[in-house]
Amino acid sequence: MQDFHAYLSIIENRLKSSAPVKEPDRLYQPIRYTLEGGGKRLRPVLLLAACEAVGGDADSAVNQAAAIEMFHNFTLLHDDVMDRADMRRGRATVHRRFDERRAILSGDTMLTMATQLLAEGCPDALLPRALRLFNATAIGIYEGQQLDLDFESRDDVTVDEYINMIRLKTSVLLGCACALGALMGGADDSRIRAFYRYGEALGLAFQLQDDLLDTYGDPIVFGKEIGGDIINDKKTWLRITAMAEDTSGIIAAETEHPSEPAEKIARVTGVYDSLGLAGRCRELVERYVNDAIACLDSIAMTQSARDFFATLALGTCSRNH
Amino acid sequence: MQDFHAYLSIIENRLKSSAPVKEPDRLYQPIRYTLEGGGKRLRPVLLLAACEAVGGDADSAVNQAAAIEMFHNFTLLHDDVMDRADMRRGRATVHRRFDERRAILSGDTMLTMATQLLAEGCPDALLPRALRLFNATAIGIYEGQQLDLDFESRDDVTVDEYINMIRLKTSVLLGCACALGALMGGADDSRIRAFYRYGEALGLAFQLQDDLLDTYGDPIVFGKEIGGDIINDKKTWLRITAMAEDTSGIIAAETEHPSEPAEKIARVTGVYDSLGLAGRCRELVERYVNDAIACLDSIAMTQSARDFFATLALGTCSRNH
Repeated sequence: MQDFHAYLSIIENRLKSSAPVKEPDRLYQPIRYTLEGGGKRLRPVLLLAACEAVGGDADSAVNQAAAIEMFHNFTLLHDDVMDRADMRRGRATVHRRFDERRAILSGDTMLTMATQLLAEGCPDALLPRALRLFNATAIGIYEGQQLDLDFESRDDVTVDEYINMIRLKTSVLLGCACALGALMGGADDSRIRAFYRYGEALGLAFQLQDDLLDTYGDPIVFGKEIGGDIINDKKTWLRITAMAEDTSGIIAAETEHPSEPAEKIARVTGVYDSLGLAGRCRELVERYVNDAIACLDSIAMTQSARDFFATLALGTCSRNH
Repeated sequence: MQDFHAYLSIIENRLKSSAPVKEPDRLYQPIRYTLEGGGKRLRPVLLLAACEAVGGDADSAVNQAAAIEMFHNFTLLHDDVMDRADMRRGRATVHRRFDERRAILSGDTMLTMATQLLAEGCPDALLPRALRLFNATAIGIYEGQQLDLDFESRDDVTVDEYINMIRLKTSVLLGCACALGALMGGADDSRIRAFYRYGEALGLAFQLQDDLLDTYGDPIVFGKEIGGDIINDKKTWLRITAMAEDTSGIIAAETEHPSEPAEKIARVTGVYDSLGLAGRCRELVERYVNDAIACLDSIAMTQSARDFFATLALGTCSRNH
């Protein structure tokens, strides 16, 4: 096993060479811009680490790791068009920096490039299974995005529906990254499945922590303004739970002073506080982190490999950015 | 070999079962709408016919044929968003009938579904090559679409650049369909390559005939209004050639009476007529049709198979819709 930064460095190098400088430049320029935008690279690091945890060599899975990161960035790019988002990772989104037509088309190109990377250097014997996993995951993510869009016009979203949505929109890709890494490393079915479940539980913890930070984070450390979800009436675990437990409180907080964002954030957060939601959400994050760590027990691996994945999961619930 | 309608019936049946009725319905509804919209189904028919021409069984390639048609419809769907087109095949485009966000997301889903179909039932030994061909073709098509968008703001597009653009945007998918069919049917490399070249030449003839019909077609038979390309100053072979040979004539025709579409169409068509462009374009179509037919000579196949592909190519240059 190598450490997080070693895997990060492998993936950054591979992504650099996968961002093509070729004609027509107006197609490839937004792709380079997107890949240069940074990000945690959590998914490809998970993939490389899972590959080595089961006895494989990270170098043999680097194209598949790049495929997962390319795919992830494609979904962010198209989601930003759909959400009319202006900013991503501190820079203008692709459709703002260039234009919407180039954002759609370069996103399509990234999806196909991701599939190319997935197949590149993949042993023929593993390709059918890798491709099935990758495609099924992609379909799940589109379904999750559609559910998220559907939630905008609904006020009766349940916590179960929300958890299912973030499972599809976020978690399955982390599960896929871990499972794909294990597959590339030569693991058997049961270890592949256990790694998938680890990634899925980690993804749920990760997204709920993200929701928590959007309301309760430190704007300096978090890297973006606090309260965006509240301003946009976004259906998060916090809002859905508050809506179920104090309907009139949340409606009053959202509808009074609608033109004063700071006031709205303070009043909605007040309702959350009165229900103790920050602490309860933190407990939920911890539960999913524990679920993830429990999956590790069923996977035969070295202590250092186990530590890598356990530390990463524990880091999720203590992270503040 | 079966006839065109027999292959059409095979592909229509397969497409019906590939249009899913499942949740979230707002994601899958635009996909069903798109696949129910008809179309010539030329690409999947070519694929099934090429498979049988080399001794294969159409039933063994039906998923790959559906993959190509699914992919083609995805490109039309996203192109319509980029072009802000209102109508497609006599009905509202997806982003008009539903909304733009669902058009983008259901298009993404169709691209992944196409890749799933490509792999479904594909012998493991053929999958790496089928996937490489499919992905490389898709990248070519995105590049062609970007070049087409780039041409909008350029007035110095050459005929060679135009032919390269339509080769990428249209022809490579016909080449890919033929080559994939031959691959699925068990053909060797040289026959696969010859089938690719046949499809590519056919695609050039097909697109140039389309350009010709847009100006010189019978609106009743063609199924859409005549002169759309002229109204939109679209860089077609006709306009590019006229711009090179009678620059002042075409500029005058396009800029006088800009608010009277019928007048503009008549005047621009007048310039085309004075240069004899309709006849010259027809000759070019015939040249590509002859190129396509010449490719057939290098492929060992029965007389009835050869007749199928030759008749199809000849039909392209005499078609009026």
